Amino acid sequence: MVFETRLREAAQQVEAHLQHVMAPLGDLPVVQAMRYASAGGKRLRAFLVLESARLHGVAAEHAIWPAAAIEAIHAYSLVHDDLPCMDDDDMRRGLPTTHVKWDECTAVLAGDALQTLGFECVSRQECHPEAVVRAELTVTLARAAGAQGMVLGQALDIAAETAPAPLTLEEITRLQAGKTGALIAWSATAGAVMAQAETAPLMRYATDLGLAFQIADDILDVEGDAAKVGKAVGKDAEAGKATFVSLLGLEGAKARARDLVADACDALSSYGKDADALREAARFVISRDS
Amino acid sequence: MVFETRLREAAQQVEAHLQHVMAPLGDLPVVQAMRYASAGGKRLRAFLVLESARLHGVAAEHAIWPAAAIEAIHAYSLVHDDLPCMDDDDMRRGLPTTHVKWDECTAVLAGDALQTLGFECVSRQECHPEAVVRAELTVTLARAAGAQGMVLGQALDIAAETAPAPLTLEEITRLQAGKTGALIAWSATAGAVMAQAETAPLMRYATDLGLAFQIADDILDVEGDAAKVGKAVGKDAEAGKATFVSLLGLEGAKARARDLVADACDALSSYGKDADALREAARFVISRDS
Repeated sequence: MVFETRLREAAQQVEAHLQHVMAPLGDLPVVQAMRYASAGGKRLRAFLVLESARLHGVAAEHAIWPAAAIEAIHAYSLVHDDLPCMDDDDMRRGLPTTHVKWDECTAVLAGDALQTLGFECVSRQECHPEAVVRAELTVTLARAAGAQGMVLGQALDIAAETAPAPLTLEEITRLQAGKTGALIAWSATAGAVMAQAETAPLMRYATDLGLAFQIADDILDVEGDAAKVGKAVGKDAEAGKATFVSLLGLEGAKARARDLVADACDALSSYGKDADALREAARFVISRDS
Repeated sequence: MVFETRLREAAQQVEAHLQHVMAPLGDLPVVQAMRYASAGGKRLRAFLVLESARLHGVAAEHAIWPAAAIEAIHAYSLVHDDLPCMDDDDMRRGLPTTHVKWDECTAVLAGDALQTLGFECVSRQECHPEAVVRAELTVTLARAAGAQGMVLGQALDIAAETAPAPLTLEEITRLQAGKTGALIAWSATAGAVMAQAETAPLMRYATDLGLAFQIADDILDVEGDAAKVGKAVGKDAEAGKATFVSLLGLEGAKARARDLVADACDALSSYGKDADALREAARFVISRDS
């Protein structure tokens, strides 16, 4: 209960900050589409940034910048993912996707500009007084988002569609480490980067968490209620795609996700009780219904 | 002649550097598409970076990073511009466009990852020993590329297609200041940013140069040979779009471009003969046939 309140508060903070950052951009359709596409969502990535920053004594006024950055990058990836030439999804978070609400051209451009905005947020002076921190946040964000991170995961996902055999567990783990894991890892370590502290424990936490997150997504695709999830479910099975559920079975996938969350929590032992919010975030990831 | 040799050498250097930067990315179709889309071209933007850096005594080993960055960003913008939902172009630089050579999905992703790569290039430690310079290059690049710069120009261009009246000279100047001017200005000032020197003279030069560049593009769309230009010509007139040629007439547009180039050259007076390569670049921009 306390955790969910905290998550909601973090979501409201990052929402307000994104609106603030986009305020000078005017009101052309592409900017309206940027605002639309970056609104809502659970804001788990922003929460990870804010909590890892708090854990390291980083001021909230600085941490809000990488929190906004990662949500802008995440939003860009969803807008482009949903395009007809990609996953061709009409609904997202219970609302029409950006290209349905506007058009494909506006959606491509809005996604492009959201990506750019993400990099602007971590390189602006307000983000952190130390330029070396801003540059480190930027270069790590670029690696997490680019062709060695999120785009690699996307590319492997596309390649899988025409592969002669379904992916193995190892292949699907690599795919997801890029597609969702890289941005989650960046978020969870951002606080340590801002404090110029050791990132290893948070990286171990995030690696387990990212995988648990994706297993939970695969479970939701099987068991979830489309109305709650806010998008179509059952698409993976329909497409005959290998998922953690098809490879491990429903119960096996749930057990694996629970083990990963336990490992993620253990990785935070050096922080003691201060990291309880991050532990609750890990448990939330596999208990959510959307 | 000397200038064209220098331009060609700069192009080869940046080409080699982009290949070097992309070497660790493997060989998935999306990475092949990134290499394809970022190959070739005149590399005017990279030349401006390298020359403005040389003018300020910045080491070439550092300057090559923002030069590669701007070409990656430029390449991303072309890949997305050419998409069926945008300008729907089949040819670019005399070759099939990326979505024709691969498919739309790969082109969207390759463009996305090229944008990310651009930000990686300016934030990597090798780019500059001073983190404050890397952060400044990043934030200015984000502003030039995003919804207040290049994407703004694109959005205005789209809005113009359905506008009740053709654009005025003032409106088209604003559109082009975003669409092509912002990246050109970033390129020409990058050397001063790297040297932590005054950017004002190069900014004045670049503002005139960027506008002259776009006027020259409009003239090429009327007078150019598709085989040399490497893409379809005559598209603007066909679409009934307002251009500098439709607004100023062919001779008027040529005269305006010449005046802008003269002003651009004058803006460099404080650098004396050291800036001759940049002056030649300005003259080249309005004399090119492609």
